[in-house]
Amino acid sequence: MSNQKLFNIAVVGATGAVGEQIIRLLDERNFPIQELKLLSSARSAGTKIKFKGRDITVEEAAPDSFKGIDIALFSAGGSVSAELIPHAVEHGAVCIDNTSAFRMDPETPLVVPEVNIDKINEHKGVIANPNCSTIQMVAALKPLYDRYGISRIIVSTYQAVSGAGARAIDEMLRQSKEVLGGRPAEPQILPVGALPVKHQIAFNAIPQIDKFTDNGFTYEEMKMINETKKILGDESLEVTATCVRIPVVYGHSESVYVELNQDFDVEEVKRLLADAPGIVLQDNPSEQQYPLATDAAGKLETFVGRIRRDLSNPRALNLWIVSDNLLKGAAWNAVQIAEYIAIEQ
Amino acid sequence: MSNQKLFNIAVVGATGAVGEQIIRLLDERNFPIQELKLLSSARSAGTKIKFKGRDITVEEAAPDSFKGIDIALFSAGGSVSAELIPHAVEHGAVCIDNTSAFRMDPETPLVVPEVNIDKINEHKGVIANPNCSTIQMVAALKPLYDRYGISRIIVSTYQAVSGAGARAIDEMLRQSKEVLGGRPAEPQILPVGALPVKHQIAFNAIPQIDKFTDNGFTYEEMKMINETKKILGDESLEVTATCVRIPVVYGHSESVYVELNQDFDVEEVKRLLADAPGIVLQDNPSEQQYPLATDAAGKLETFVGRIRRDLSNPRALNLWIVSDNLLKGAAWNAVQIAEYIAIEQ
Repeated sequence: MSNQKLFNIAVVGATGAVGEQIIRLLDERNFPIQELKLLSSARSAGTKIKFKGRDITVEEAAPDSFKGIDIALFSAGGSVSAELIPHAVEHGAVCIDNTSAFRMDPETPLVVPEVNIDKINEHKGVIANPNCSTIQMVAALKPLYDRYGISRIIVSTYQAVSGAGARAIDEMLRQSKEVLGGRPAEPQILPVGALPVKHQIAFNAIPQIDKFTDNGFTYEEMKMINETKKILGDESLEVTATCVRIPVVYGHSESVYVELNQDFDVEEVKRLLADAPGIVLQDNPSEQQYPLATDAAGKLETFVGRIRRDLSNPRALNLWIVSDNLLKGAAWNAVQIAEYIAIEQ
Repeated sequence: MSNQKLFNIAVVGATGAVGEQIIRLLDERNFPIQELKLLSSARSAGTKIKFKGRDITVEEAAPDSFKGIDIALFSAGGSVSAELIPHAVEHGAVCIDNTSAFRMDPETPLVVPEVNIDKINEHKGVIANPNCSTIQMVAALKPLYDRYGISRIIVSTYQAVSGAGARAIDEMLRQSKEVLGGRPAEPQILPVGALPVKHQIAFNAIPQIDKFTDNGFTYEEMKMINETKKILGDESLEVTATCVRIPVVYGHSESVYVELNQDFDVEEVKRLLADAPGIVLQDNPSEQQYPLATDAAGKLETFVGRIRRDLSNPRALNLWIVSDNLLKGAAWNAVQIAEYIAIEQ
């Protein structure tokens, strides 16, 4: 494909956990790149990162970093996106934002390619990547939404520490060693770095991800509720979420109860999921086969199992949905969107 | 209380994780004991266990072990209970059974003292202790059931490895060290010792506790569904459960969605729970206060927090319920029942 268009790409947050995976995926997927610009905070600028066998020096992200950039992938936190994306858009870049800064903006499409890739053409410079816990859930529920309709979703999550960044991984592993060595675990980061109270994550379950809103739900829970409605384009959908951090490194798991609008056949549900793009069916109780975070880690797909009709409500279904939160939940969903943009041009 | 009646007590499964806690509680609570008989399998017989400063030698449990015993506490597995309890009852002992052997028997009361202590007088020799995950949930929901009525419960659990016994704790700690040392975790016991397939529990979440039934739910999930209805005495109650093992040593956590039969005030719900026997309210989002397994470990109470009205269903409530699965979930509930029996006599 010698006449394929090549793109100037910027990755903002290049030294973070998600940025690292974005760069790896651009490399592995042979994304048609002319120039790759790696950007970060002043603190991490100067770091060298290997790409296609050569070192790229990370530069400090600034408003004029985006001159000549075609596609910019942001995963450096909401405040960085809010500040720099308007400049990138002004310079003509299409921005794929992995933070929550623009997700609920009515002008900004919120895209999971398997669900609503048609929305990417409606962008005004920014396409938002949904929250990790939302992406895997809507990817798995979309085939059921299309076939049967969905009226209600009740989800409880089992989320990996990598969702809180590389320092949270370090903290969980350090605490695990402390506890195994009979020493007290010293919490310093989780549940929320910016809040005063810290809790032990090693050998524990913390029912708080992100800050609390006034209604008693956390922002993480509200993201799942609001983003699910926006992505499926259905404001009447009833969604409840309880988001919990558990001592897992990579891979969010979700226990999902879903009420469908019509009767269904469980075997048909399994076939729909087996045939759905980006979904892997792992559902064989007699072989004790079901999705596990440790199996999903490092994979691009979303894994679904424990599929069973509810015993009290015959229109309801229970599922267990697992995916790598840094990949489909973040980096891979963003690179997928970039690939669609590249194909369209 | 020199004229207090003293009891001959037998503990079956004295060397197990639950048996150990029962003995400790009988000691700490100064249970009015004349003779304490400690029983186990042939394998563990001969072990010496300290009680009130003196060593008691564990004997092999046999049909004639129960001569002269007033109260026998069983926690040595369902098959041991099924075999020995009829003999113990014949010898006149009241049996408090911590296994699932008699729980759904219509002749056997299934008792959580805070919920239905009145049922203990209906026993025909056996009183069943419910499953750990059920006990803490019904203890927390009982005040709401009485005040508002409950039509539906949807629960996802985050269960500690100690629920699978001392060997499962050892396995989880060993695997954690293996993974932290960069070695592969070798699963040997979990999720179910008697089944062929094993999965890593360290840094993972396993959506299987106990074997699968034909309807796709596990026995653990069916226990939560059926026992909850029996304890609350309400067959019309709709209950759904997804039971998940996570890498926690002590303390089951539960994400519970509950539909009430009438409107409610969230502050009143909190007051009802704060005033309920055996319940500790831990609900202060602004202070990041909510129940945690690591805090509940070693305590007798059930802790409740994250209480919030559902956003999509104003008659529904979300809660986070945590308790020590070996204590309120097993040993303490059994000793509590024994204390009530002692008081009645």
